Parts: sequence; C-alpha cells; structure tokens
Amino acid sequence: MNRYLLAMLAGLLPISLFTQTNPAAQAARLWRQQHERAIVDEFVELLKIPNVSHDRENVRRNAECIVKMMEKRQIPSRLVTVEGANPVVFGEIRVPGAVRTLVFYAHYDGQPLDPKEWTSAPFTPTLRSQAIGKGGRVIPLSPPGTPFDPESRLYARSTGDDKAPIIALMSAVDAIRSAGLKMKSNIKFAFEGEEEAGSANLTKILAANKDLFSGDVWFMCDGPVHQTRRQQIAFGARDVVRLDLTVYGAKNELHSGHYGNWAPNPAMLLARLLVSMKNENGHVLVDHFYDDIEPMSDIEKQAIADAPDNDQELMHELWLGSTEGAPSKLLDLINQPSLNIRGMASARIGAQASNVVPSSAIASIDIRLVKGMDPLRTQDRVINHIKNQGFFVVDKAPSAEVRQAHPKVVWVDRGSAGFGAVRTPMDLPISQEVIRVVESVRGSAVKLPSMGGSLPLADIERPLGTRTIVIPIANHDNNQHSFDENLRIQNLWDGIELFTALLTM
Amino acid sequence: MNRYLLAMLAGLLPISLFTQTNPAAQAARLWRQQHERAIVDEFVELLKIPNVSHDRENVRRNAECIVKMMEKRQIPSRLVTVEGANPVVFGEIRVPGAVRTLVFYAHYDGQPLDPKEWTSAPFTPTLRSQAIGKGGRVIPLSPPGTPFDPESRLYARSTGDDKAPIIALMSAVDAIRSAGLKMKSNIKFAFEGEEEAGSANLTKILAANKDLFSGDVWFMCDGPVHQTRRQQIAFGARDVVRLDLTVYGAKNELHSGHYGNWAPNPAMLLARLLVSMKNENGHVLVDHFYDDIEPMSDIEKQAIADAPDNDQELMHELWLGSTEGAPSKLLDLINQPSLNIRGMASARIGAQASNVVPSSAIASIDIRLVKGMDPLRTQDRVINHIKNQGFFVVDKAPSAEVRQAHPKVVWVDRGSAGFGAVRTPMDLPISQEVIRVVESVRGSAVKLPSMGGSLPLADIERPLGTRTIVIPIANHDNNQHSFDENLRIQNLWDGIELFTALLTM
Repeated sequence: MNRYLLAMLAGLLPISLFTQTNPAAQAARLWRQQHERAIVDEFVELLKIPNVSHDRENVRRNAECIVKMMEKRQIPSRLVTVEGANPVVFGEIRVPGAVRTLVFYAHYDGQPLDPKEWTSAPFTPTLRSQAIGKGGRVIPLSPPGTPFDPESRLYARSTGDDKAPIIALMSAVDAIRSAGLKMKSNIKFAFEGEEEAGSANLTKILAANKDLFSGDVWFMCDGPVHQTRRQQIAFGARDVVRLDLTVYGAKNELHSGHYGNWAPNPAMLLARLLVSMKNENGHVLVDHFYDDIEPMSDIEKQAIADAPDNDQELMHELWLGSTEGAPSKLLDLINQPSLNIRGMASARIGAQASNVVPSSAIASIDIRLVKGMDPLRTQDRVINHIKNQGFFVVDKAPSAEVRQAHPKVVWVDRGSAGFGAVRTPMDLPISQEVIRVVESVRGSAVKLPSMGGSLPLADIERPLGTRTIVIPIANHDNNQHSFDENLRIQNLWDGIELFTALLTM
Repeated sequence: MNRYLLAMLAGLLPISLFTQTNPAAQAARLWRQQHERAIVDEFVELLKIPNVSHDRENVRRNAECIVKMMEKRQIPSRLVTVEGANPVVFGEIRVPGAVRTLVFYAHYDGQPLDPKEWTSAPFTPTLRSQAIGKGGRVIPLSPPGTPFDPESRLYARSTGDDKAPIIALMSAVDAIRSAGLKMKSNIKFAFEGEEEAGSANLTKILAANKDLFSGDVWFMCDGPVHQTRRQQIAFGARDVVRLDLTVYGAKNELHSGHYGNWAPNPAMLLARLLVSMKNENGHVLVDHFYDDIEPMSDIEKQAIADAPDNDQELMHELWLGSTEGAPSKLLDLINQPSLNIRGMASARIGAQASNVVPSSAIASIDIRLVKGMDPLRTQDRVINHIKNQGFFVVDKAPSAEVRQAHPKVVWVDRGSAGFGAVRTPMDLPISQEVIRVVESVRGSAVKLPSMGGSLPLADIERPLGTRTIVIPIANHDNNQHSFDENLRIQNLWDGIELFTALLTM
C-alpha cells in the first residue's frame, strides 16, 4: 500500500459518532487529506513572524505575508489603515449573482508574552505529539502524503488566538476551487492587526471605509470551541476594560527590621483594597456594579439551559477543588460581568526576595461587561469604590508632595477605552441559518447568547450597521493569552470543513 | 599651600557641635585625614567581589581577600568553616597582659539582588556627590592627599551591610599602630559569610571552635546608626523567620474571559489570606501571636523614652503620609514583633500583563520576633491561622490530586530556622563601659534595648556563653537589602574613630 492510500484510509476512520451531512464540508475533508503538510507548512510560515501588537514592524510583516497568501489565490487584497494603526488586511471574492455579503473576521496580532515562560520559543512553531501537560514530545511534521496525528498540537504564539482561522479560511478557498463548489454569497475577509491591544483603531478604520467593509453579517472567527470539543456559536461577546492600580509605601524599599510595622506596606494596602472589591463567592461589591445589565431573552436563557454542563470534568482537568460563584455554572457566570486580578506584583519573591518593606505594589484588573453596562461608567464606579476605601486617587505617578499629604495614595490607569458588549438576537433569520449550516457540518452545537471573552463587536456593528456572530475553531485548552499557546491539529481540520460550508452558504 | 596642608585644614573643620574627648579617636582622625584615598581604595577592591551568599565561589574570594588584608597587617588569620558552609574569617591580636578579650563581628556576604534595578552595577563601586535621590552625580575618587567630600557616597552591594565595618576595623588597626596607641584587651575578628542567608551554620562553626571564638563580649558591627546620624548602640536584636506562601488556582493560566469569575483567582485568595493576618492599624490577628513576649525592664523602657522622636522628619524624608501602628512611634514599634509582606507576585503586570486568571500567587512574609517568642512556635501559630482560613496546607508543591481534593490549597515554606531574639541587660558593667567609650567618641548615643533588624546573637551567645552588643556605623539611608545600597563617606570616617577607641578600651 502506498503512502497516499494509507493517508486516504486514515482520513476515513470515524472521528466521532456524528455523520456529516454537508457536501461542501465532505469535499473539503477529501481535499484536506491530500494536502495536510502543505496546509501546516503555510501555517508555520505565518506563525514564525512575531506578532505582539506593539511590535509595529513585525506586525506589518504579518500583514504582508497574509496579502501574499491571498495573492497566491487570486483574491484581490490590500492593507487598510489609519494614521498610527496596524493595518487591517482586506480581501474580497465577488460572486456573480450574489444577493448578500458575508464578512469573515480574524486577527493576526497576538498577546504580549515573556519568552522565558515558554517551553519552546514562541515564534519557533513546534509540533508535539500531544499537550505538554500530558507528556507531549516534540515530533517532526509529517511528510507530504502522510496524515498528521489529529491529536498532535502545534505550539507557537497565536496558533489558537488567532492565526488558525486565517489558514483555515485560505485552505477552505483552495478546497472550494479544487472541488469546483459553487458560491452563493460575496465574501470579504477582514484580518485585524491590533485586537490584542484593544482594537483601538478598528472603528476608525471601518468608519473611513464603510463600503469596503459592509456586509450582511460578520463572522467573528476567534476564541475557542466548547470544552467538550463540540462546535460553539456565540451571538455576542462581553466587553473588557482594565484598571491598573499602583499603591505606594515609602519612596524606596526599606529594611523590614528597621521600618517594618511602621512604614505602611503597599502590598498589604493593595491586598486590602482588592479584597474589598469582591466577596468570597465572587460577587462584586462595587456599588451599582450590576445596575445596568440588560436581562436575557427567553431564547437566550433556553440556550444556556441547553448547553452541556461539564463543570465537574473541567474542574478535574484544571486541577480545581472549588469554583468561584458556586453553585452557578461556568456558562451562567460568563454571561454575567466579572472582575478579575490578571496580575499582581510587589518587590521580589523566591531567590531574589529580601527582607524589605516594598515601596509600591501593583495589580492589574480586568472587568468583563455584559450588554447594558457602559465601559467608562463601570470604571468610574470602581474608582469611586477605591475612593470610598480611603484612597487618594491620581491618574499619573504621584509626586512626593502628594504622597506626603495623603495617608493612602493609588495611581489608577484606565488603559484603552472599552467598546461595549453585544448580543445578536438568536431568532434573526441569519442566526437560524448559521445554526443550521454549522450543525450540518459539526453536529449539535453549543449556542451561547454571549461568549465569555471579548471581541470588538460593537466597533464593527456601530459604524457598519451590520450583525456579528462568533464562530471559533480553536481547542479550549489552547493556552491563549498565556505561555505555551497551541492548536490541536484536528481543530484546524474541523475549521477548514466548517469554513468551506459557511463560504458556500 | 600644598595639597597635604589643604587636606589637614579641611579635616579640622568642625562637623558637629560635639567635641570629641577620646584621645584614641582623635589620633585616628589625624591618621585617617592622611590616608583617605588608600582607605577607599582598599574598600573598593573588596566591594568589587560579588558576595551574594549562595554564590559560593565568589563568597570565598571575598574571604580570601579579607585574609590578605589581615596578613598585610601581620594579624594571624584563617578561614574557619564546617561542611557546606561559607567560611568565617577569623583574626586575632594578642596583647601581653590583657585580662579580657573583645570580639568584633561583621559579615562580608550580601543580600540577593536584581542588577536591573540598580542605577550603577552593584559590584562596580561608584562614588556619587550625594544620594541618588538628591541628585547625586558620579564623581571620581579624590586623589591621594585631597579630602573626600564627607557627604559623598559610595554605591555598591554591601557598602553599608556589612563590608564597611571590616574596612573601618582594618583602618583602625593601622591608626593604632601608626600613632603607637596602647591596647589593653585581646582582640578577635570574626567575619561571617552567610548572615544574609540566615546564618544557618554559624552556631555549628562556633560550637566546633569554642576556644577560638571565645571572648567577654562580641561587638556586632552591623546595621545603621540612628536617622539623626547620632551613634546608636543596640543591646539586642529581633529574630526573623520567613514564610513563603504559594496559593493555587487552575493548573495553568486561563483566559479571563472564558473562565473569569468561575476559576478561583489565586491572587484574590492570597490577598484575602494576607488581609486576615493584620488589622488596618498593623496589629497581627494571628491567635496567641503576642503571648510569649518578655516584658521590658525599667532601664529598657527609659532608654526608649529617652531616644529621639524624629518620626515626622522621617515620614517627610520617606514620602509617607501615614504610618502603620500610629500613634505608636517607630522606636516603640521596632521593639515589638512584626509581620511584613516582603514580596508578592502573580502572573504579570505592566506591558507583559495579559487577560488571564493566574495559576498561582506567591507572597513571602517575614516575621520579626522579640525576646520570649519561639521561632518555630510562632511559625506554627501563623500556619494554624492559615488553616483556620479554610486552607489545606502542604509543605511542598501540591499534586493534581491534592489540588482537586481541596477548595483552597497553599504551600507554606518555612525557610531556614530562626535563632531567637536577644536583649543584653543594659546595666551590666560591660554595657555601661561601652556606653561611656562610645559617647566619648561620638557624643550622646541612641541606646536601644533591641534593634529592629535581626542578627544571629543567640547563635553566638548560646555556644560561647558570651554577651553581644550591636554597634553599627552605616548611615540609616544606605538602602541595605535593596538596590542602590550605599555608604556615606563620613560614616566610614566616624566608624574608624569609634573602632579605634573600642579596640583600645
């Protein structure tokens, strides 16, 4: 038996009990099975280019690489930007007789990182037999004609968040052309370059190019599928805003023997401030925090009730002996607002620790907002809460005089502005059609009124007057936003099939 | 006028209103004024050798350098150690007809550091016109025969803590010999090499070499003088123990959108635990924490009452708008036990922060003990407190199973054992004699029953049956235990005079 035949047979083995009924997806699978190595090679080339949002030069190299990928497929494309922004990569497939336009969104920039935390270098894509935490070992890419182990994983920054959809969409276009599938809608691609920096310029770029980016619906190809590996469709996303808090002690670190218990300890002051913000069950104690939330509709409540409850399995998988907000379930909780400490630091720990009273203590918190909550007003409410704890709040590093004049001083940095949370009604005709197509490719889907993560949906809907639906393909355990980010290979294959069906709907 | 004469005149200018009445100190001053550059050159050579306690190889180079300094002065010396320990440098001056032995202790190892935090490299000694915080600029060492600005400062690790006394003692020996001063006591030097690592082996080294290290009193030349720049004598020191706490969330960092408010946040759990340990006024809330404290004697209470109250000036200098434990004063508070957060960390802050729920959060706390408090029992009481907050306490990194089985898990690392706090009675004849000699050199001294910092006094007193008295020379604002450690040049000059008087008493 030759290698080609082996590969064919391996691809025909059942990977789930669901039988796919979507012919476009079936054609995509056959095509993919013949091109696995080429698909992964193209992915690796893109992943090699560093893409942390503020690294402008490398971010532009990413954009140019994606333009080349489109040019290779004769998809007219260009970089669209405004002064000071990373470009959006735009591409378009016009279909004669099409009566609607579908826009596929992904982003090619990635979260900041500390290379020292990574098992292999974040911009040296590395295939492993399985997840690192399960003993995955480094393996070579499969030679052309030989199937990849679908459980193997590719490690690099943005494998999951969010370069995978770009490769899956380009591969889907190849599959459509190779199989001669008919397209019924005009297609646009919009790949953003600063989503992880808060999409500060997206609204400006779209508002300045309304016709270019207009469409009946934007498919937001970002985020992970459900932890059960079932396909997920989210009809909205929470918004996120940030507050960085710096609490001050003495002007420099002091010997803890000579000054401890007399010089105020900023780490303790910060701890006390943070603790004042939430009770032990995760309820946020900031006044009026929950006041403006827009209630769920009946169909939205039903969708959450219908979603699988795998909290116990998830706790086990994540080594958790308890959850915050219990007995509420994960899917309930991510449809509510949250307040989270994303990082905290004061002086040093471990081998570099020394017996000092620290001079300052820093916490960065992120707040997820649901529909109805205004980003600025919510930040204001938290800042009022901080003032109510006796802190003098400043918006820049405080002077000696300010620190001498007030018992407790905190510098609060708001970061970039929020964009507002969105929930697209699940009973719209386009919502119902998307559910039908997705389930014909991937089986029963988990349908969420809102995903827990944040996407700049409002920044898209507002200037363009369009709708947004979130269709992710990454595995849930992809470590996105952290070190050792990875994509499970089967998720890439599933994504190609799913996008082939959506591109031809 | 030639340079030599200029230097002589500069040295004769009054530097305080106090008139020195000690002839040995007066002789030392004249000698010093003629040898300032040579003294600083010898100091610089010693400071160039990295001395972080766990850096065994470089620590030994320090010890060998000090042996050479003694050999240069015909002081018989040797390295004394036990298996696995950094050596104590021992030296001895036998005086015919002497009826007592005075031992001078200092340590030549230094606190761990992060070079990135330093303005100039920690092992590249750098002279500045004054403190960095007051605009001090880098200046060259004064040429031989030209006086140093007494307010200039030498920056390097261990300038203040604790290599300065070693140089001052060696210079005092030179001054004694040059002026032909008569010595009345046998002198021993004991320079330790792992004080900053907790003096784990000091007791063992002394117990194995009792005769070598025996003496009527050990002068502990470590720590800073009073913030008013008045000489300080401390008749004891607090003990210090440490507890490192690691609190756990999920097995890896999680996306704060997809898991926030459901996955427990270890930074918040840690903050809540820390806050439970102290009230807002600095009182420790651990049950029985204060139970075993030995009360102060009347002479000790009087000494604290007589000490200067410069809290307001100190608050201004340190940019503080409040103090912990107010209205109690600093000198009251450092004679009581303390509990201090010396470092704290969870995930990342600043440009490297990302929207995650951290996987763990770490705090290192140090506890200062006063006479009567048992180190182990005190740690036990804090650990009991932690258990009472609902934590499952482990003494090593917990397994997945342990983390899955308990709602809240903390790894508590006790670090090295404590040595116990010491207070030498202030009415002993030797105590009273030391006060008289010191005040004849340096004027009215601040006399403390105990210093706030920690020294292994018990580890010395217990095996040798001796007494200990702490006589520091460094400036209070020397940044010891932190970055940009420095010594004010006048403090070195004062130290030489003081030690000359003590060596000849």
